[in-house]
Amino acid sequence: MDVSVVVLAAGQGSRMKSSLPKVLHTLAGKPLCDHVVNTARQFSNDINIVVGHGASLVESYFAEQDVKFCTQAEQLGTGHAVAQALPNLPKTGVVLVLYGDVPLTKAATLKALMEQVSDKSMGLLSVIVSDPTGYGRIVRDENDKVSAIVEHKDANQVQLAINEVNSGIIAVPAWTLHEWLPKLSNNNAQGEYYLTDLIEMAVQQGIEVKTVHPDHEEETLGVNNRMQLAQLERWHQQQQAEALMTEGVTLRDPLRLDIRGVLNAGQDCIIDVNCVFEGKVTLGANVQIGPNCVIKNATIGAGTVIEANTVIDDAIIGESANIGPFARIRPGTEMANGTKVGNFVETKKAKIGEGSKVNHLSYIGDTEIGEHSNVGAGTITCNYDGVNKFKTQIGSNAFVGSNSTLVAPVVIESGAFIGAGSVITKTAAADQLTVGRARQVSLSHWQKPTKQAK
Amino acid sequence: MDVSVVVLAAGQGSRMKSSLPKVLHTLAGKPLCDHVVNTARQFSNDINIVVGHGASLVESYFAEQDVKFCTQAEQLGTGHAVAQALPNLPKTGVVLVLYGDVPLTKAATLKALMEQVSDKSMGLLSVIVSDPTGYGRIVRDENDKVSAIVEHKDANQVQLAINEVNSGIIAVPAWTLHEWLPKLSNNNAQGEYYLTDLIEMAVQQGIEVKTVHPDHEEETLGVNNRMQLAQLERWHQQQQAEALMTEGVTLRDPLRLDIRGVLNAGQDCIIDVNCVFEGKVTLGANVQIGPNCVIKNATIGAGTVIEANTVIDDAIIGESANIGPFARIRPGTEMANGTKVGNFVETKKAKIGEGSKVNHLSYIGDTEIGEHSNVGAGTITCNYDGVNKFKTQIGSNAFVGSNSTLVAPVVIESGAFIGAGSVITKTAAADQLTVGRARQVSLSHWQKPTKQAK
Amino acid sequence: MDVSVVVLAAGQGSRMKSSLPKVLHTLAGKPLCDHVVNTARQFSNDINIVVGHGASLVESYFAEQDVKFCTQAEQLGTGHAVAQALPNLPKTGVVLVLYGDVPLTKAATLKALMEQVSDKSMGLLSVIVSDPTGYGRIVRDENDKVSAIVEHKDANQVQLAINEVNSGIIAVPAWTLHEWLPKLSNNNAQGEYYLTDLIEMAVQQGIEVKTVHPDHEEETLGVNNRMQLAQLERWHQQQQAEALMTEGVTLRDPLRLDIRGVLNAGQDCIIDVNCVFEGKVTLGANVQIGPNCVIKNATIGAGTVIEANTVIDDAIIGESANIGPFARIRPGTEMANGTKVGNFVETKKAKIGEGSKVNHLSYIGDTEIGEHSNVGAGTITCNYDGVNKFKTQIGSNAFVGSNSTLVAPVVIESGAFIGAGSVITKTAAADQLTVGRARQVSLSHWQKPTKQAK
Repeated sequence: MDVSVVVLAAGQGSRMKSSLPKVLHTLAGKPLCDHVVNTARQFSNDINIVVGHGASLVESYFAEQDVKFCTQAEQLGTGHAVAQALPNLPKTGVVLVLYGDVPLTKAATLKALMEQVSDKSMGLLSVIVSDPTGYGRIVRDENDKVSAIVEHKDANQVQLAINEVNSGIIAVPAWTLHEWLPKLSNNNAQGEYYLTDLIEMAVQQGIEVKTVHPDHEEETLGVNNRMQLAQLERWHQQQQAEALMTEGVTLRDPLRLDIRGVLNAGQDCIIDVNCVFEGKVTLGANVQIGPNCVIKNATIGAGTVIEANTVIDDAIIGESANIGPFARIRPGTEMANGTKVGNFVETKKAKIGEGSKVNHLSYIGDTEIGEHSNVGAGTITCNYDGVNKFKTQIGSNAFVGSNSTLVAPVVIESGAFIGAGSVITKTAAADQLTVGRARQVSLSHWQKPTKQAK
Repeated sequence: MDVSVVVLAAGQGSRMKSSLPKVLHTLAGKPLCDHVVNTARQFSNDINIVVGHGASLVESYFAEQDVKFCTQAEQLGTGHAVAQALPNLPKTGVVLVLYGDVPLTKAATLKALMEQVSDKSMGLLSVIVSDPTGYGRIVRDENDKVSAIVEHKDANQVQLAINEVNSGIIAVPAWTLHEWLPKLSNNNAQGEYYLTDLIEMAVQQGIEVKTVHPDHEEETLGVNNRMQLAQLERWHQQQQAEALMTEGVTLRDPLRLDIRGVLNAGQDCIIDVNCVFEGKVTLGANVQIGPNCVIKNATIGAGTVIEANTVIDDAIIGESANIGPFARIRPGTEMANGTKVGNFVETKKAKIGEGSKVNHLSYIGDTEIGEHSNVGAGTITCNYDGVNKFKTQIGSNAFVGSNSTLVAPVVIESGAFIGAGSVITKTAAADQLTVGRARQVSLSHWQKPTKQAK
Repeated sequence: MDVSVVVLAAGQGSRMKSSLPKVLHTLAGKPLCDHVVNTARQFSNDINIVVGHGASLVESYFAEQDVKFCTQAEQLGTGHAVAQALPNLPKTGVVLVLYGDVPLTKAATLKALMEQVSDKSMGLLSVIVSDPTGYGRIVRDENDKVSAIVEHKDANQVQLAINEVNSGIIAVPAWTLHEWLPKLSNNNAQGEYYLTDLIEMAVQQGIEVKTVHPDHEEETLGVNNRMQLAQLERWHQQQQAEALMTEGVTLRDPLRLDIRGVLNAGQDCIIDVNCVFEGKVTLGANVQIGPNCVIKNATIGAGTVIEANTVIDDAIIGESANIGPFARIRPGTEMANGTKVGNFVETKKAKIGEGSKVNHLSYIGDTEIGEHSNVGAGTITCNYDGVNKFKTQIGSNAFVGSNSTLVAPVVIESGAFIGAGSVITKTAAADQLTVGRARQVSLSHWQKPTKQAK
């Protein structure tokens, strides 16, 4: 059956105390509403987003995606919001109503919900909670069929004790929306059109309201303030941590892991405390990641060890490499197998060949290094003249002495040996010793510095 | 009504296993008793601290503050402790008794308590706990008026079931202390004078004991060992995290945030995991702070991004600046709008003008940089000759080539261009290329190093 | 009484999803089974490990230790496993059966268990749990003596309500194993030989089954997947944190501390959030450790301050020293009292004399520094020529100017002053100024770099 999705994303979220519309606040590195759209896309190509507050920001966020927008100029209730999408919605098939600020409903839960929809039935996602205070209660008849949703403030003593509550998420035959939404009334205390009122119409019309529960209450929780945002963030992170552990990854502390994107990890990877992964990160088997690392958009080969306090962004790392601690691997870095980048080293657009090492306090930018070369401590590639960037090329089996300055464009040929402390401005020939440094002199009749009057 | 405060701070705290008196142990970066004095100062100018163990350390901690000390040479009970302050206390007005090891009572709670005090009544801060074991129970008469406090070990079965317990914090008419304290007896198992016995005297004398509850039990918790210190630290941090989120700050993990001082954050700031703030830190709107940063006594302008693993101490940062990762900003640093300090860079007493950049592996100390200048990777300002510190001045639109050594005192004039690897010891003229480096030579008949016998 | 220990370590642990046998997975830096063997060694010299899956890996892990191995080629149940060790076991004394995947049973608990063993009694470690689902229930007779262990699936309603469950850990007279194990039957649904069946034999034979409870349920928990591994890791870390706090150490957050080995800390040490300790670390009194430090195999003297984001490995640090932030102290570093190693500094095999300082962006390897010397920012010791390592010697009261390159082997004599930016290749004489740098020249008729076409 064809599925159309309506995502309500027009609310202001004033309790967020933000200049950003609520649905654009991020959870796990992605706006709340993008989580919802992403889930919906797994079973629908017809996604309609109802925008209102901050509409242009939401629209621009989704500019590259295949979604339709409907504008709810005034916020007159959830029923009114869905009604804005009505002109876009087909008259057949299923319509699923989701909320841009309820980010973590699982696709499997929604699929189960949509399976409840038939000519004679609709689906309602309800949830069993320990404390139903404030929620709409699911009232059932003697046959255990849903007969009504009663809002907290309207509930009697018996109803208040019900702990099955309404999530607001429904899946209905498309035709019912066309028939029912125009009939919604705003004749209530808030003067709003409530989507919940559809349940009563369904019951009256003999459309059975079938309920589905999510596996976790958190799948139905919305974000109204930043405490709730943080709670869902942490729950989501815990879910991801458990999934990783189930797949064969050791986490030293599952409560101190953040994955903002997708982390694919091979078997027997070990991730130490307090690491953050962003974007798409792929780890081979047996990769070890030390504490306090931040790794973004990277592929890291099997058996590689990333030591403490390392930051990696947009890089490809081979197998059995060793990085850090305190390394900064910047975009465009490619490290081959068995390479080593050590402490206080920054690389950027650097290709480092198999077995080559940059162990200490260096900046390697716009550089290609061959195999089994050694770049000494304190080496700086001078790749920038203030306007242009130039390349440094270092061959294989080269040795760049410590504290060298390589002024690009420059070539260090294979087997070249650069004396420590040299400034290299032109090609250093293969297998030769090249130095560029001053002669050492001592001054015996020299006066030690003395404290100067200020 | 005038309020005098007595803070009991004479205890040893032997379970702390410390050479420091208990009340000087820090929570959120400040001694326990300083939290108490700080709160008291919000409604009183007459603060009396009863000192005993480690008296000189406590007195010296408060040396600069307007507080009075009374010495309790022997620790003979809470009643005895307050009695030491009696000579300092006025005969009219309200006296509030606080404890130097109960750090987190809120001022609002204490104000509510003091409002209970009249000619005919006193205030007692009591608290409802889930497990009252060990605490003095609040016994009430048929009219629900406090009739006694019964210590746990003296309580009968009915009394043991009471879960309203004594916090020890009281507010009384000043005259009652002058009348009652001299009458206290130490005729009990411990041979101590208990402040609690005042309650009985009050009841006998027809002074009504009116109770106030704090919002949170933690407001009445004392610190007797380091587990309790840690528990209150974490509770306090959670309270601060919630306050920040309520004001419109996103915290990626509210359980991984430490604020030791005051953090003022503008709307839509985002603080990543594991950050520590010390002293007074002010963030403009939309500031983003990466994971594992430590920021102390700093003002950071709107839209500035602080990347992972950055340490800032005593600095002023403009708007839309970018710092880190792995930057160390030391005292006296002032970064203008749009500046950038990158990885493995240390700044100290450095003024960096608008749009200027120090991106990589540099030490910039005692230095002024104009606008839109670029300091290359590995640049070191040599500001110290072993006894004196000297200044480096870099003009605007200057370019300092990588791995340069700037020997202060020295001036790089505006528009100067310093060749990479140069040692600069005297003024580099405006708009000229200045270099100080040796000629590069190669030795073709050179013998590669070979493994030496050890 | 002599104690022989049998450690069952043959299981595959398929839910670990690992290429490593389950018992070699690490908790607090040590394989699960090593925790067990380590505990057993406190009261026994006769340790028998039953290996199976990954036997060679387990055997090789314990290669240096005094343990015996017995192979269980097929996994036919716990009774079968113990039976493999039978040929090695004496006929007198006590045999204790432990599990290689139950890492955290305390020695005191096991000693109490073994004390239950006599000619007429054996010991069974049972535990009271809140949810006994899945566990074997301890059934007792009218005299409260253990009469049987009933597996969950065989239990009736009354038995299901029992919340005292079997840990599997038993201590028995050695002779009973020789008598009973051969009689075990595999006549059950799984076709396995169960150790639990010994209980029935004991009861039948009038050997009383005396139970002991551990202080904590976690002492009896096994690791079957990585979630359980993480749970025990965190519980163990919490136990260690509490022990430290009890001894007089302040932890800013006990939930963010990892000790993988042994941490001995003097009184009034303060450990900030998110630190990791590995191997054997000893801290003198009043040591302060900042956030995000990783410290391994180190001795740190009283009053020393380690600042944020510092990594130390295999080093000896004196008193009142100051390290970090962002320092990397590598193996063989010895820092005397009052020394300072600052940000972005790496040391390796470096002896730094009293009061000497290496404050900024330096690499100090294979180096000895005397007392009260100052090594300037950006100094690099060039200790490696690609094949050999050479030593740098710096005397006392020497001053090495910033951005110097010290090409080892080289000697900077006491009182020598090295001009900033120098390359030093031969002895710098005592008390003389030595420089090795080029003359500064300016080019007034110079063309600024312009943007080049790509």
